[in-house]
Amino acid sequence: MTDYTAPLADMRFLLKEVAEFGAVSRLPGCEEATPDLVDAVLEEAGKFAAGVLAPLNSVGDRAGCRLEDGKVITPPGWTEAYQQFAAGGWVGLGLSPDYGGQGLPKCVATPVWEMWFSANTAFTMLPQLNTGESEAILLAASDELKATYLQKLVTGEWGGTMNLTEPQAGSDLAAIRTRAEPQADGSYRISGQKIFISYGDHEITPNIVHLVLARLPDAPPGVKGISMFLVPKFLVNRDGSPGARNDVRCVGLEHKLGIHGSPTCAMSFGDAGGATGWIIGEPNRGLEYMFIMMNEARFGVGVQGIGIGERAYQQALAFARERVQGRDAVTGAVGQSIINHPDVKRMLLTMRARIMAARALAYTAAGWFDLARHSPDTAAADKSKRYVDLLMPVVKGWSTELCQQVCYDAIQVHGGMGFVEETGIAQHTRDARIITIYEGTTGIQANDLVGRKVLRENGATLRELIVEMRGVAAELAAAEGMQSMAVRFAEDIAALERALDWILANGRERLAAVLAGAVPFLHLLGSVCGSWQLARVALAAAKPTAAEAYGADYLRGLIELACFHAHALAVQAPALAAAIVGAGETATAFARDVE
Amino acid sequence: MTDYTAPLADMRFLLKEVAEFGAVSRLPGCEEATPDLVDAVLEEAGKFAAGVLAPLNSVGDRAGCRLEDGKVITPPGWTEAYQQFAAGGWVGLGLSPDYGGQGLPKCVATPVWEMWFSANTAFTMLPQLNTGESEAILLAASDELKATYLQKLVTGEWGGTMNLTEPQAGSDLAAIRTRAEPQADGSYRISGQKIFISYGDHEITPNIVHLVLARLPDAPPGVKGISMFLVPKFLVNRDGSPGARNDVRCVGLEHKLGIHGSPTCAMSFGDAGGATGWIIGEPNRGLEYMFIMMNEARFGVGVQGIGIGERAYQQALAFARERVQGRDAVTGAVGQSIINHPDVKRMLLTMRARIMAARALAYTAAGWFDLARHSPDTAAADKSKRYVDLLMPVVKGWSTELCQQVCYDAIQVHGGMGFVEETGIAQHTRDARIITIYEGTTGIQANDLVGRKVLRENGATLRELIVEMRGVAAELAAAEGMQSMAVRFAEDIAALERALDWILANGRERLAAVLAGAVPFLHLLGSVCGSWQLARVALAAAKPTAAEAYGADYLRGLIELACFHAHALAVQAPALAAAIVGAGETATAFARDVE
Repeated sequence: MTDYTAPLADMRFLLKEVAEFGAVSRLPGCEEATPDLVDAVLEEAGKFAAGVLAPLNSVGDRAGCRLEDGKVITPPGWTEAYQQFAAGGWVGLGLSPDYGGQGLPKCVATPVWEMWFSANTAFTMLPQLNTGESEAILLAASDELKATYLQKLVTGEWGGTMNLTEPQAGSDLAAIRTRAEPQADGSYRISGQKIFISYGDHEITPNIVHLVLARLPDAPPGVKGISMFLVPKFLVNRDGSPGARNDVRCVGLEHKLGIHGSPTCAMSFGDAGGATGWIIGEPNRGLEYMFIMMNEARFGVGVQGIGIGERAYQQALAFARERVQGRDAVTGAVGQSIINHPDVKRMLLTMRARIMAARALAYTAAGWFDLARHSPDTAAADKSKRYVDLLMPVVKGWSTELCQQVCYDAIQVHGGMGFVEETGIAQHTRDARIITIYEGTTGIQANDLVGRKVLRENGATLRELIVEMRGVAAELAAAEGMQSMAVRFAEDIAALERALDWILANGRERLAAVLAGAVPFLHLLGSVCGSWQLARVALAAAKPTAAEAYGADYLRGLIELACFHAHALAVQAPALAAAIVGAGETATAFARDVE
Repeated sequence: MTDYTAPLADMRFLLKEVAEFGAVSRLPGCEEATPDLVDAVLEEAGKFAAGVLAPLNSVGDRAGCRLEDGKVITPPGWTEAYQQFAAGGWVGLGLSPDYGGQGLPKCVATPVWEMWFSANTAFTMLPQLNTGESEAILLAASDELKATYLQKLVTGEWGGTMNLTEPQAGSDLAAIRTRAEPQADGSYRISGQKIFISYGDHEITPNIVHLVLARLPDAPPGVKGISMFLVPKFLVNRDGSPGARNDVRCVGLEHKLGIHGSPTCAMSFGDAGGATGWIIGEPNRGLEYMFIMMNEARFGVGVQGIGIGERAYQQALAFARERVQGRDAVTGAVGQSIINHPDVKRMLLTMRARIMAARALAYTAAGWFDLARHSPDTAAADKSKRYVDLLMPVVKGWSTELCQQVCYDAIQVHGGMGFVEETGIAQHTRDARIITIYEGTTGIQANDLVGRKVLRENGATLRELIVEMRGVAAELAAAEGMQSMAVRFAEDIAALERALDWILANGRERLAAVLAGAVPFLHLLGSVCGSWQLARVALAAAKPTAAEAYGADYLRGLIELACFHAHALAVQAPALAAAIVGAGETATAFARDVE
């Protein structure tokens, strides 16, 4: 059994002192998010996460899901916890108040979602689906569909799903074959097979609203011929209640490495003639709408990485404090907790530095989301939007990759006990293994970063970001005791710039070479963003005004953590810059197939 | 289901052209290991691995082990496969012919054991135990114990175990509490609890020979008071057959993340008054004898890492060739196997380069074992022994860490299918997760490397190795088309030297700081050894004489692989050197406990 305590001090500090919360809370529509309200929300969420969701995490892992007589049975306690979760208003925390949401800014909702993912990732995938789906319906669906479905989704009364993948269409949605035939009444008959559908069926909510990618009969081939449809599990009566069963069924559950509590369904649409659905927005624009959901989902998966990492870190830290083993390397004293062993201390600091770096970036990015959406200053809104677009693949790809390393070290700290399932630490590694894959693998994120985000605009936004980073480096250089960090950060930025120059110089003529270095480039940009964010953390922690609110001891720890990150972890930046060029030059030079 | 094909071409090339096989086969006692015999042995082993052991790998994972009525039930097919394995003479392949072994050099036995680990790691742990145990008995036990037990172990008629760990004594064997009371007849009564005992009980062999660490009543505290005892499951009759049941029992099985086919037992000695055992060698020298087994076992675990990595690589490669997804990044052509995507190619090359680097080092180290043991040239024997001692923690620690990354990429290549257990690729990640923990975690290996292998002799052997590496760098620089590799390799060596200088300069005054950088140092030394070995591979592949034996195409691939390793992977060496200093300086500077 593993406990979880929401890291409220870190969350408050990052939100208020590092992310753009100050600016966000002054935006039109965000005025209700006062510091006091935010504190209260974080505290309540922390209690619910620790008290209700966290204890169910290993229950879900052990019990898993079953398909019995065509019904998907979720783990014991899941339905009751979900009812409490929805009743608490948590599903729509960041969603529109017009449809029953709480309308809190994304930068406030983000630490709350992080808590849910820490407490119980497999459970949280259910309400997470509602947020992306609600955004897509809000932006693209007809008023009638909105009126029928949106409030049910925002409040969590009904569940939602994303039906994208087919056996031959994973990363490559152009290969989708599911068909939609228009009917005289304006509806469509949907038929086809979808796989890997999270919470594709369950008994937790009385209805489930599937968003399904499919092709119209006259659709052009490829991604330009994909439309999006809304297909409810139960057709909806005039009074809004669930009515007749629709022709969509779960026909199988995957047996997975992790997230056992989340049913991963193979779905069949139209076995009995066709499932009834309605088109979202215009024909053949499904991919565009899907990306509304997908951007939500990708950000959410990045936060998932931070959440799972935090949980694993907390457990490793507790174990390292408790477990007595070996003698002090220097004094020879026996009876030492292993936290005193230099290598264990290094692992714990590494875990914490990685989590804090990724968390600071995600919270900051969440603030940009809010600014992009609400700021009346169009220049500020535009800049925020460009930063979000540029760094979304980093928040998703880099945070989830870091999480793997954090979970790895968490087992390592446990020694042999880490390999025994009862210890509970292995579950985090198993659960986390999917997050660098779903909603676009790290490779897909890196291609998106290099292709759509950097090459397409000739590196403009990244150059802008680099200028901003240099400003922070100058602040560091001027701050007391931060010179060595400033020197390192300047090296990081220089490495990033070298890699960017190479990518821009070669992107046109030698795209394959550039793409062979795309994942190292994502790691490099992530690492430099981590240095940037922890530099901002250190500067904020050094402000004389901070001591009273957070305590000098806590703040000193943050500065030391930033220093550790700069010298022990971020030193990899020049090597990554070299690897980008090296991988590109040598992988494509291969005269023959991989052996 | 996943197939396995022994990589005979790679094994033969490395053994004959890169490892010291030529020198070894001329040693007294090794003359029978002719090239033809070696080819025949590798081929036969490859057939047995692919045909018998590999298909049982997923069977063992799914079925696992059960404890029923005090009996440990291993997976279906385990016993039959083991009987074939033992009948084939594979258990004692590298063990003394005086006791029924084949007496082949370790450098020949090593690729064979790699095949077993590729094919079925959980199964192979059983015969692997016999090798270490036989070495310990051969070197330390009385003639009477040898006469009774050794042939049974070398031939695999009986199984063996290592009983070290207790709940409070994991990495810290000083904390062992199991007791041994001398009896009038020269035997001892053993009582205590041991945990994490691989194959601690089973029905596969008619008897099991436990080697047990325990304390005599008058033993001094700590590691200097540990003795080693031989405790058979069944006492042995005068005719050598198993007789009365001894007082040692499996009282529980661990539920583990991986290697489900290997029963991990909690063992109880002396519940009914005391298990009968006999002392191995002299009192209070148990730890020394244990390290005979442990060095065998550590080398074996390094090879396990190579074996599991190879299996995962083969499966990922097959999937990448078969799976069609997406379009060519440059030409836009559809219907591409994903192996053509630059990022997938990068992952596959990375996997192969890592495996080949670790394999070349392990085979070379195996050759040093043989030279150290058999060479009549005492200077050569001595140098080989020093190299083995220095690099044993690297073969164990670095090869097993690389294996984690290989298995990670292998899942990544599979995308969503990689997370589904039926695909079979996740098993390798789960199985591999223990190998950086057991027989000494990576942290323990790194402490051994820095403390006992480098600081204790003031870096002498490592300096000697660096001189040897510089010689290879000079050869590279003089070889056609290898200049850029030579430049990179020289950078690697310089980075290693910088780190070594810092460690030697600070090891006395600031040991904790040095130990905080011990794991990065292990990675650095591993990486530079990888560069060294692949440089040797490239030089051997460029020899005009090689083309006829191996084919020009195969050899060109090896040179390109070495080039990819130098420029895309080994570039991390300078960063690792910086991280060693950085981790040391900043982790120990922390004014407070880890948060």
